[in-house]
Amino acid sequence: MIGKSDWSMIDTYAKSWIKEAGSRIRDSFNKKLLIKTKSNKDDLVTNMDHETEQFLISKITETFPNHQILGEEGFGDEVKALDGVVWIIDPIDGTMNFVHQQRNFAISIGIYEDGVGQIGLIYDVVNDELYHAKKGQGAFFNDTALPALSDVSVDEAVIGINATWVLENKRIDSSVLTPLVKQVRGTRSYGSAALEMAYVAAGRLDAYITMRLAPWDFAAGMILIAEVGGVVTNIKGQPVGLLNESSVFASNGNLHKEVMKNYIEGFI
Amino acid sequence: MIGKSDWSMIDTYAKSWIKEAGSRIRDSFNKKLLIKTKSNKDDLVTNMDHETEQFLISKITETFPNHQILGEEGFGDEVKALDGVVWIIDPIDGTMNFVHQQRNFAISIGIYEDGVGQIGLIYDVVNDELYHAKKGQGAFFNDTALPALSDVSVDEAVIGINATWVLENKRIDSSVLTPLVKQVRGTRSYGSAALEMAYVAAGRLDAYITMRLAPWDFAAGMILIAEVGGVVTNIKGQPVGLLNESSVFASNGNLHKEVMKNYIEGFI
Repeated sequence: MIGKSDWSMIDTYAKSWIKEAGSRIRDSFNKKLLIKTKSNKDDLVTNMDHETEQFLISKITETFPNHQILGEEGFGDEVKALDGVVWIIDPIDGTMNFVHQQRNFAISIGIYEDGVGQIGLIYDVVNDELYHAKKGQGAFFNDTALPALSDVSVDEAVIGINATWVLENKRIDSSVLTPLVKQVRGTRSYGSAALEMAYVAAGRLDAYITMRLAPWDFAAGMILIAEVGGVVTNIKGQPVGLLNESSVFASNGNLHKEVMKNYIEGFI
Repeated sequence: MIGKSDWSMIDTYAKSWIKEAGSRIRDSFNKKLLIKTKSNKDDLVTNMDHETEQFLISKITETFPNHQILGEEGFGDEVKALDGVVWIIDPIDGTMNFVHQQRNFAISIGIYEDGVGQIGLIYDVVNDELYHAKKGQGAFFNDTALPALSDVSVDEAVIGINATWVLENKRIDSSVLTPLVKQVRGTRSYGSAALEMAYVAAGRLDAYITMRLAPWDFAAGMILIAEVGGVVTNIKGQPVGLLNESSVFASNGNLHKEVMKNYIEGFI
């Protein structure tokens, strides 16, 4: 097991690399972006996704040759188990925003030891805003400590959810989440899971619900949200695994309980 | 009718006032944040809405006593017709975001002469980003000229629309916009009509659709979008009036035509 001082060192490196990666992305804005589609037409990937992942991987393997890396673009290791230290990386979370808007995307890095979240970093590149957390030491927005999440009722909640999940789709009956969407004060959809989880950690969204994410989308956000007393489960209220795709329901504790009880349990 | 040089002067004043109003919001909101804990969140917003509108009105009436003012908070004139110069003001567009997030809201100012849009300003206060346009002189994001909007197909479009409008609601049959939401590449919802229209002008959203706005929500955005060759109508494709609430469908020209033809005409 890694000692306290080592985590501090890892944290320092990780923060400096994520900032450098972000700076490289910002510099790339004036250059030509190459866009490819992955599994389907809307699953975009760019040369900057690849370059950013490779940059981070080269830094990590040089400095920490024994750490494993799980990354969206597949240049990392084939991680089958969470033994030892595993970096879970999304070089550009919100690629569609990156392509269409050149904003509202983030670099996400979650660092786990034997499956336990130790460091979570989500970097809003364009705004130069870093959401960061170290296990047991709280979560921060740049230099500002984020307070513990406060209770909020469904009526007063603003939640992150895409319209997809209340229309006919492959993952959930559209009638399940519809009453919730109608009951809350408002819904938002930003198109970056990492940023939306950072928003939950920062109290800007009271919850975030989505039916399909990969580990690199939520690995960092889970650590941030845990540090402010929030809860992250799948849509059934079960723990979210780090080796498979999952639905995600992130929220403060009381709202999570209320929503599970009144809107989800027994309905899915 | 006002001469060219006068519009230049009005523009200079309007920009300086919107920036000063934003700076006052940022200041007061830092103070409020410190005392935020248990105070009534809705009072905070009411105060800031009122204070900002009154600040702008006092500046306008002092400098341009003959201009009329139409404002969300009702301290302006009772505007029954669009004769002469009319300032249409939303002191804080995206009130819910202001309360919950302390970001993602804007000050919106549209200035019309005899019903014709002359100056449009949308100020993203927290990011210090000003979207601005003067009739016939193009639209800008800070100092950067915004290019004319390019064509985009429905399949490749990212559109701003809230989940509300594809669920049962009072304004439109939920089945009308559902096929569009399913067909586009993605949907986003930011909770500030002014910012979402600014995003359309800046090419970050290919369209924005909402079923209920007031003139102060869209007066500035309409001018910005016109300057980049976009189209703003109500959901039926008719001109949007400035004296009444309206639905709004803002987009680039070809997407607007395609959506009207294939998703809306004959369906509402």
